[in-house]
Amino acid sequence: MNSPRSANVIGLGLIGGSVALALRRVGFVVHGEDTVAGREQEALERGVIDAAGIDPAAEITFVATPVGTVGESVARALAVTSGVVTDVGSVKGPVAAASNNPRYVPGHPMAGSELHGLDGADASMFEGAVWVLTPSGSSDDSFSSVAGTVTRFGAEVVALEPGQHDDLVAIVSHVPHLTAATLMGLADARSEEHLALLRLAAGGFRDMTRIASGSPAIWLDICEQNKDAITRGLDSLIEGLTEMRSVVSGSDREGLRAKLERARVARMNLPVRAGAVENLVEMRLPIPDRPGAASEVFALAGELGVNIHDFEVVHSVEGDRGIMVLVVRSEHVEMFRGGLMARGYRPGVAKLA
Amino acid sequence: MNSPRSANVIGLGLIGGSVALALRRVGFVVHGEDTVAGREQEALERGVIDAAGIDPAAEITFVATPVGTVGESVARALAVTSGVVTDVGSVKGPVAAASNNPRYVPGHPMAGSELHGLDGADASMFEGAVWVLTPSGSSDDSFSSVAGTVTRFGAEVVALEPGQHDDLVAIVSHVPHLTAATLMGLADARSEEHLALLRLAAGGFRDMTRIASGSPAIWLDICEQNKDAITRGLDSLIEGLTEMRSVVSGSDREGLRAKLERARVARMNLPVRAGAVENLVEMRLPIPDRPGAASEVFALAGELGVNIHDFEVVHSVEGDRGIMVLVVRSEHVEMFRGGLMARGYRPGVAKLA
Repeated sequence: MNSPRSANVIGLGLIGGSVALALRRVGFVVHGEDTVAGREQEALERGVIDAAGIDPAAEITFVATPVGTVGESVARALAVTSGVVTDVGSVKGPVAAASNNPRYVPGHPMAGSELHGLDGADASMFEGAVWVLTPSGSSDDSFSSVAGTVTRFGAEVVALEPGQHDDLVAIVSHVPHLTAATLMGLADARSEEHLALLRLAAGGFRDMTRIASGSPAIWLDICEQNKDAITRGLDSLIEGLTEMRSVVSGSDREGLRAKLERARVARMNLPVRAGAVENLVEMRLPIPDRPGAASEVFALAGELGVNIHDFEVVHSVEGDRGIMVLVVRSEHVEMFRGGLMARGYRPGVAKLA
Repeated sequence: MNSPRSANVIGLGLIGGSVALALRRVGFVVHGEDTVAGREQEALERGVIDAAGIDPAAEITFVATPVGTVGESVARALAVTSGVVTDVGSVKGPVAAASNNPRYVPGHPMAGSELHGLDGADASMFEGAVWVLTPSGSSDDSFSSVAGTVTRFGAEVVALEPGQHDDLVAIVSHVPHLTAATLMGLADARSEEHLALLRLAAGGFRDMTRIASGSPAIWLDICEQNKDAITRGLDSLIEGLTEMRSVVSGSDREGLRAKLERARVARMNLPVRAGAVENLVEMRLPIPDRPGAASEVFALAGELGVNIHDFEVVHSVEGDRGIMVLVVRSEHVEMFRGGLMARGYRPGVAKLA
């Protein structure tokens, strides 16, 4: 690890540019590729990448092309490089199914910006953000490599099944986006009757429709690729709104109070980005010699609601058997330990200084 | 106008406290009343009001009690004071119908805060905000008094029919609020299946559900009082989401693009709070001797999409016939002038220095 480590980033837009900057910050030499004319040169001049093109020997390649082309870019990256390949696409089922390979770890950082392209690229974009990995066929070494790298970006890794990821992001991202657009369209239609309508829109309405100001282009691909989960999510939302309508039109005050109170409590409890957290504890976990073990640890953490604040794989001197070093909150240690032991791990715990 | 002007504020919560502070800032001596034990004393100590109780001779009284009790508070204010009475309730139809009185001008400032009570009270809350007035039976003098006062708070007055106001705020405020709560409830229900769900919630979801963290109490009254408009608004939203579902599930890429593009353009064009605006022009308008004329001017401005940036009523020396002084953007002058002349006004225009 003393020679310079090399990485590729394919697709130098908002997320790809941010990944490149984060990679450089943690010590990688970064090669970047983009099919848009002049983009590689711009990235070089802005110091986003160290070199244009792809390094076949890079230990890790991030694919950050538009969601509709991720599959082919991943396949090419697997063909022309010898290292690990991951991607940052918003839908994981189709690409995970199409590119089953031990060197490939599908991923999706839950982060973004209202800025576009390299203008919004930011090395700190992933600090405190959740970075979902959806291993399916990925080797433990590949998973550990990607999880370790993005953890060094400041992200928290959550491991999910690809289909599970797609279901969950439909609920917290895709359906809300389409709802914002629908609300905005409704207000726009009504504003034709009365121009004053949009002037009445105060902060709450602005907050709710802000995401509708984004470019439609990426959403066409996302909606196509995650059509089934989004359709199910919209059905659930329509059902929920129909219940809400019935409670309001029936003057069911207690029913309305219960719905609003449940939402209020859930919103108050929405996890915040990890800031300074006290009482962190380090757990050391020999990785057993069976496939999928490393990603299983993250999947278990997600199921138990345990945040992994830091993560690293170290190799002991006597062999190449890896040890996962996980940093979690002290109040989560016993539960996590129990879950890990139930699955055959032998976690050791050391209180952090 | 050289003796101290007196005002009352009934209900010293977030909005009432902000109104009191704004009144004091523009030179009023403010009397305040609240039924919550100790609240008047607290308002006195914080310098929100000058005196506890009601001044029967106050020239203007703002009723800022919860929306369910506005009607009775307005009736009492009209009975015990000799001046103009207005209120700040979120629903206008029921109270406008119940309290038809030349001295009463129903109102609704489109402003708020995430803070509660006097902790959030702020003299600048209304700067750049729209303040809706829904005169129905109000005299021109009363309307001008309220419109002139809130304009001095920095607000922009928009005049609407009470029922029209209720329809429009259902679309830009009440339905979005219930939608935020429904989205949050949906995510909460799904998070029981997988604890990781809420950790995937990024900025867009947080923005969309932020208003759901507010106290349910005021919404129970709002939903009761504006039941019909909210029910119609929810019907329109459900219809819009059903169309969205059909476009997504049918892979209608062009249909989806059209919907998202329309929303994007509308969101980009959402009026921003008035900041520094150049090219303002002053219009002077003798108020004709017929009832409702002053509020008609504001209603017309709203229909034409003309922002009134400043507003004042001056009285000429030769009589008590008022002259409205309106400040609008230069690009709106000709259209506004045409509309006013079509309705029998004789506007004069003077370019501002």
